[in-house]
Amino acid sequence: MKQSQLSYFIRRQSPKDEEAANAQILIRAGFVDKVMAGVYSYLPLGLRVLKKIEAIVRARMNELGAQEVLLPALTPKEGWEKTDRWATFDALFKVISRDKREYALGATHEEVVVPLAQKSIASYKDLPFGLYQIQTKFRDEPRAKSGLLRGREFLMKDLYSFHANEADLDRYYENAIKAYALIFQDLGLDAHLTEASGGTFSKLSHEFQVFHESGEDHIAYCEECGFSQNSEISDLTEKSKCPSCGKSGIRMKQGIEVGNIFRLYTKYSDPFSLSYKDSEGNDTPVLMGCYGIGISRLMGALAEVFHDEKGLLWPSNVAPFRVHLLALTGSEDKTAILKQAERAYEKLREQGVEVLFDDRTDVSAGEKFVEADLVGIPLRVVVSEKTGNLFGLKLRTDEKERLVDFSEITKYCGDIR
Amino acid sequence: MKQSQLSYFIRRQSPKDEEAANAQILIRAGFVDKVMAGVYSYLPLGLRVLKKIEAIVRARMNELGAQEVLLPALTPKEGWEKTDRWATFDALFKVISRDKREYALGATHEEVVVPLAQKSIASYKDLPFGLYQIQTKFRDEPRAKSGLLRGREFLMKDLYSFHANEADLDRYYENAIKAYALIFQDLGLDAHLTEASGGTFSKLSHEFQVFHESGEDHIAYCEECGFSQNSEISDLTEKSKCPSCGKSGIRMKQGIEVGNIFRLYTKYSDPFSLSYKDSEGNDTPVLMGCYGIGISRLMGALAEVFHDEKGLLWPSNVAPFRVHLLALTGSEDKTAILKQAERAYEKLREQGVEVLFDDRTDVSAGEKFVEADLVGIPLRVVVSEKTGNLFGLKLRTDEKERLVDFSEITKYCGDIR
Repeated sequence: MKQSQLSYFIRRQSPKDEEAANAQILIRAGFVDKVMAGVYSYLPLGLRVLKKIEAIVRARMNELGAQEVLLPALTPKEGWEKTDRWATFDALFKVISRDKREYALGATHEEVVVPLAQKSIASYKDLPFGLYQIQTKFRDEPRAKSGLLRGREFLMKDLYSFHANEADLDRYYENAIKAYALIFQDLGLDAHLTEASGGTFSKLSHEFQVFHESGEDHIAYCEECGFSQNSEISDLTEKSKCPSCGKSGIRMKQGIEVGNIFRLYTKYSDPFSLSYKDSEGNDTPVLMGCYGIGISRLMGALAEVFHDEKGLLWPSNVAPFRVHLLALTGSEDKTAILKQAERAYEKLREQGVEVLFDDRTDVSAGEKFVEADLVGIPLRVVVSEKTGNLFGLKLRTDEKERLVDFSEITKYCGDIR
Repeated sequence: MKQSQLSYFIRRQSPKDEEAANAQILIRAGFVDKVMAGVYSYLPLGLRVLKKIEAIVRARMNELGAQEVLLPALTPKEGWEKTDRWATFDALFKVISRDKREYALGATHEEVVVPLAQKSIASYKDLPFGLYQIQTKFRDEPRAKSGLLRGREFLMKDLYSFHANEADLDRYYENAIKAYALIFQDLGLDAHLTEASGGTFSKLSHEFQVFHESGEDHIAYCEECGFSQNSEISDLTEKSKCPSCGKSGIRMKQGIEVGNIFRLYTKYSDPFSLSYKDSEGNDTPVLMGCYGIGISRLMGALAEVFHDEKGLLWPSNVAPFRVHLLALTGSEDKTAILKQAERAYEKLREQGVEVLFDDRTDVSAGEKFVEADLVGIPLRVVVSEKTGNLFGLKLRTDEKERLVDFSEITKYCGDIR
């Protein structure tokens, strides 16, 4: 994409009405716009990142054999009454229509997916299966000060799985853990599988925690063996022996919860009488699991983890573009430089490389460099009077640029693609 | 995809709580589920269609040079007060948060996109540009009886364009008409450019109308020259002379409005003081256009237009799959038949053909045929005891199946891809 054709939302200054580092830098770099507390617009660069995160998650859900659906945001009151959450779920946004029907804005979708699942379940032969959704959800958060980490409106992937027995639920749960580990690996994030409360059930749930000072959660983590437990269920301190390896490796960490998985058993099956006929024809309750990943929260977590004082440093899998091509046209041979850059742009695009081409002629070299660092595309390629027939190549993480010929750029693109 | 892995949402019977033909057949065939009046879930087959429509629209928006953004569903009251729509837009769903903030659920997004656009506009050099969004919108429709044609919650593409002068707005408007014509052509729909009310402005707006008995609009259409005018601004009857060609070709039609485009001029720029500095440094109001397409409504329109008594007949560009491969395993050499079908499945997939493979072994041939007609995938390919080393090939629109070898299937796929 040519930068001259991209609307200019880069602000370069931190917004004054934003406390969270992730939102501050994403607004400065023109990825999101704050509409109000906990509610953001995703601008062209930001939406590209969001869609890449979405695609990574979707691919792993499909590998797991789950099927994608799209559920409504307007969900009927009746379902929430069945599960007793209409009155007790404080963060539900409620809506009344002109004809006096009451809805909740989907904060989570058990109340919709359970009656839906029943329509495809008759006997044990129809189990197991998984339905997932990637869509906007809503929560009336009392404080929404963490930018994209805790929004009133946010993009979420939720997977719901349905099983005939506990062994099958456990098997699926383990597979979901593996899929999640691959997702965070794809995203370039170091996420720790962490024991957390199972709610009213005996078994634990699990969270995936990215350790970072911006995280709201407190985690007891063993540096010796990797054991990790949310402090909400842990009385471990840095003086404790690790309950897993027995060594003195416990450190207290702050964590951003980027995923959570629960065995729901029959918590939602019971109120909706979700059941199947077993091989002897008896009606038996379906067991369920649920598996969430915050897509927009992940974008916030990536911005928290991958930035420096100059700007963002996107991992290549989620970067809005792979290459930021800068034509520095300050000199007199503007036409020759633009021509050489244009040729490189076309050649890279032919090879399927996503390039943002800064073809603007009314912006100084200094400004282009500053903005390229702010936007944080992994590979910067410069064409200028000084580069001659070569190109100035610099990874966002490098200190210095070096001169290379075109073949070396494509080699780099291969590596980071 | 293997049908044994696809959750079974096919109902075969029309639902009793649904009046609209589009929703009836989409529910019967397992594409959508009705949650309540005007609110549907999109099931795996239906979501595939929705995403194909979305992709067709997105490609044409990108060709037009427009940039995609994602705007919130929760929109602040203040914006709607500025445009005087908080009190007057009857179909707005309103929400109050715990901290007593009031929001409207986005029914349209001028109130969000105009303040956003101002952030990227300083001078005339920043114009023109277009921002578009493909996302869920909400309207508190008093009657929601038309299935996907008029939902309380629906998927919509809206494009907003920003201009320095009227000539530029007119040029963009004409390009948008061309883009829309290509979109409906891609979708296989015959949509007629129709004059409609320009609201409080002098110039007309335009709608794209698909003539069909299920449509809510009444259109005066000239069969001689193609002139088309919405009866809301027309006093033409079938006895009138066509105001365009002068001939007696006027026929009254019912139409489904699948797109509409408006010159907004400064209707929304004025309340938000959206302006740019002209070449002499004077603050000048920005002119706007807006261009809508109902994505979920299009799915409803396609279902209305492309179905027969047996089921759906998807145009190949939007079909959930291109090929429905049926293994008829009723006979004794079940294994050989499954093996041959499996080979064809893999070979087609290698060629990039999207195949739904009915590999179920507990379903009769008769049921498979009935369901294939209902689901409406363009090309049906049968492997059975009777087909030997060949394949039974039938277009959904054909009466009879004929025996072909594998190469002929791929030839067909090339044609319909």
